[in-house]
Amino acid sequence: MSDSEQELGMTESKEHNTGEWYAELVQKAGLASYAPMGGFIVTRPRGYAVWERIQDHLDGWFKDTGVQNAYFPLFIPESYLEKEKDVVEGFDPEVAWVTHGGYEELEERLAVRPTSESIIAPFMAQWIRSHRDLPLRVNQWCSVVRWEATETKPFFRTKEFLWQEGHTAHADMEDAWDETMTRLEQYERVYEEVMAMPALTGRKPPHDKFPGAHTTTSIEALMPDGKSVQGATSHYLGTSFADAFDMHYVDADETERTAHTTSWGLSWRAMGAMFMTHSDDQGLVLPPALAPEQVVIVPIWDEENKAEVVGYAEAVAEDIGDTARVELDDRENRNPGFKFNEWELKGVPLRIEIGPNEADDDEITLVHRPDGEQVVEDRSGVADTVADHLDTVYAKLYAAAEETLEGEIREADSREEILGTIGQHGGYVKSGWCGDEDCEEPIKDAIAADIVMVPLDRDAEPIHEECAICGDEAVETAYWAKSY
Amino acid sequence: MSDSEQELGMTESKEHNTGEWYAELVQKAGLASYAPMGGFIVTRPRGYAVWERIQDHLDGWFKDTGVQNAYFPLFIPESYLEKEKDVVEGFDPEVAWVTHGGYEELEERLAVRPTSESIIAPFMAQWIRSHRDLPLRVNQWCSVVRWEATETKPFFRTKEFLWQEGHTAHADMEDAWDETMTRLEQYERVYEEVMAMPALTGRKPPHDKFPGAHTTTSIEALMPDGKSVQGATSHYLGTSFADAFDMHYVDADETERTAHTTSWGLSWRAMGAMFMTHSDDQGLVLPPALAPEQVVIVPIWDEENKAEVVGYAEAVAEDIGDTARVELDDRENRNPGFKFNEWELKGVPLRIEIGPNEADDDEITLVHRPDGEQVVEDRSGVADTVADHLDTVYAKLYAAAEETLEGEIREADSREEILGTIGQHGGYVKSGWCGDEDCEEPIKDAIAADIVMVPLDRDAEPIHEECAICGDEAVETAYWAKSY
Repeated sequence: MSDSEQELGMTESKEHNTGEWYAELVQKAGLASYAPMGGFIVTRPRGYAVWERIQDHLDGWFKDTGVQNAYFPLFIPESYLEKEKDVVEGFDPEVAWVTHGGYEELEERLAVRPTSESIIAPFMAQWIRSHRDLPLRVNQWCSVVRWEATETKPFFRTKEFLWQEGHTAHADMEDAWDETMTRLEQYERVYEEVMAMPALTGRKPPHDKFPGAHTTTSIEALMPDGKSVQGATSHYLGTSFADAFDMHYVDADETERTAHTTSWGLSWRAMGAMFMTHSDDQGLVLPPALAPEQVVIVPIWDEENKAEVVGYAEAVAEDIGDTARVELDDRENRNPGFKFNEWELKGVPLRIEIGPNEADDDEITLVHRPDGEQVVEDRSGVADTVADHLDTVYAKLYAAAEETLEGEIREADSREEILGTIGQHGGYVKSGWCGDEDCEEPIKDAIAADIVMVPLDRDAEPIHEECAICGDEAVETAYWAKSY
Repeated sequence: MSDSEQELGMTESKEHNTGEWYAELVQKAGLASYAPMGGFIVTRPRGYAVWERIQDHLDGWFKDTGVQNAYFPLFIPESYLEKEKDVVEGFDPEVAWVTHGGYEELEERLAVRPTSESIIAPFMAQWIRSHRDLPLRVNQWCSVVRWEATETKPFFRTKEFLWQEGHTAHADMEDAWDETMTRLEQYERVYEEVMAMPALTGRKPPHDKFPGAHTTTSIEALMPDGKSVQGATSHYLGTSFADAFDMHYVDADETERTAHTTSWGLSWRAMGAMFMTHSDDQGLVLPPALAPEQVVIVPIWDEENKAEVVGYAEAVAEDIGDTARVELDDRENRNPGFKFNEWELKGVPLRIEIGPNEADDDEITLVHRPDGEQVVEDRSGVADTVADHLDTVYAKLYAAAEETLEGEIREADSREEILGTIGQHGGYVKSGWCGDEDCEEPIKDAIAADIVMVPLDRDAEPIHEECAICGDEAVETAYWAKSY
């Protein structure tokens, strides 16, 4: 292997050195670069293309279910953020402040939006007069800034990140709760169907809700290092924001009522979680729905059969047509081994190898990116064959992630068991919980794990009889984990 | 007309009071609202939906021609902007500065991007090693901030605005110039085919180029008040930015060369120009390609024929299916006249009126938004009929704008004639020009008009022999106009 191939290929181990491996993956697969300012990244075209496809899926589902996109200002006056403090503690410690415009100091500082409730709610309040204006649903795709001092991890933790934030208002609790669940289910669907990741859905414990929310629901995904990542959130906000921002409406019976609101968001962290879940020591692994190239065709030729092999490869590419996003790699100056490595690094789900044997026998050799399985297939009907194999690749990715997740949910009945199990294995530990925040403290203090969620449906499975910490009656099943 | 209908409808006159009329249009058609901070707006769903459709068209063409989207940080360190000053004067007077993150003062101020050359170029320089890495084309859709103190006009002039900025690097001048022209042509196409606006394309005079550019080309569109608006720009930057940011590559002959770069952008100002061009005293007029609803069906019923009429209208809507974006307005609590007004205000290109006569005769009555023309057509084949009429509406909008534009390009041979013609008529005045910036001054000083462009192809039509100002030999045809 030459120096430059060494430089191209991955060197870190996912199993032994997950953090370094992830940082190398992001760089070498061309997903992102570190910006000159600490905490910021540049999203490179191959990373951004994945984000665009996630957007396309979600945005389509949002629009199919009554959501309209809009765009609210990047800046929020300090007095508007203050107003929100009736409800929430505020984002002050995390806000980037604009103090000067040109050479002039501003009369009032402007916050670069850390989230947009405080600028969106006053406008929604204006737009809502009557029950006929409800439900009102707006969403924006934008970047937000939160000045967190912790270590940068591309897509997982950056001071600026891309996301969508949906904000809705409804006539009553029931309608707002349905909305909260609709968005949570759409997030679950994008994880499962698009990103090929099984995920847990649940409620955050009361002490870990979004500030001002009645209920915070979330998607939790398991990372290969055994930590959980909060993959998206959907909040039922009750009437707290509506009260603070005078969001009232006249009902059919002429009574003035207060709207019930929700907000919900998914950031590019979802994308980071997916990169980390599926990828391996050869590089990026992408589910077919999100891969910029779904299939790469690599012709393997000698001088004497080159025209035949390349011609056959071109014909196969043509036959696949629009069924899949195909790249034919007929570069002269690279050998097949180099090409295999490069496309594996870049995460192309399916490789088609075409040599003189394939050309002679009217066949193709398919190789699945996740596990390297090789399958020889007839050339005829290649478009359908490719579609089937892409489905298989998706199924393999999902099954592997599901198997991992299932093996990483354990039970515990005591503080020692929780500590020991998470300490030894990572993953999730289920236990009975009395609902008191104090019972989280000893676990948090000892191993920095906490209750990442409780199941949405309290009655879906039997709850342990006792809180694993204090021994009082358990009212919830707590899922304990270390988390990002 | 009730008070609330009065409140809904337009009251200002486009002809007599263009500025007030536009402000009213934007508000009443639900396109935008003024934000609490001067100079900022909230883009409401109906405005944003138009922007999304413009994006979809352009973004597709960009991708078809080798452009990849990416995302660069919102903030640019002051030292990076300084570096650019080797090339350009800098955006200092227009920059919004972030000075604090949370409670801490930053060591280095961060500019909220006014444009991204200075943060994108250093990364492009990293990514370009060899001639095989060229051309390199990245684009981002984002918002930028320019702290201009002038009066806010939604979409035309706001401190924050949405745009796309494309940045490319090429091996030589020829390739970079082709790129500059490709993007200019795509902008012209989006104006003509999508926004139904004829537009002029040309070069900016040398003294009005983008700072650091070799050549700035632009789209100029005529507004109804006789002023020109710069509707998009495409810059050939030569090697100035590449030199400043060390963007070099090794050519096939192993020589190190400097890349030639371009940048090009279209902002939501294009959308504002379109709203202003086509709309009228009844409200918004939208070309079919951009209308959220392309067709509204308004059934007109009495008690005795309601079921028949509404059923027939539903069947017509069904038949149109996916051919067009159809809205069936069967609201009980609004009369047809109210509905007509409301959908006219909102700019729906085509209205279908269905009463008992239409239902009995298997017909539909179509009304074109731009001119109110009514046409009765057979119901059978309604999908094709609707598609044809949408084409006709597009053609009417384009023809009207073209006629206006053609009538507003006049000739002049002297300073007095330029002043008199623009003073009396507005619009464009063509004259010979010696190429000297000094000759622009007297016109600028007298009536605030200047040279908005010179034709791209100097030899396409005969040039006046003399500069209209100084009488020296003319080397260009100058297009004079007042502009936004």
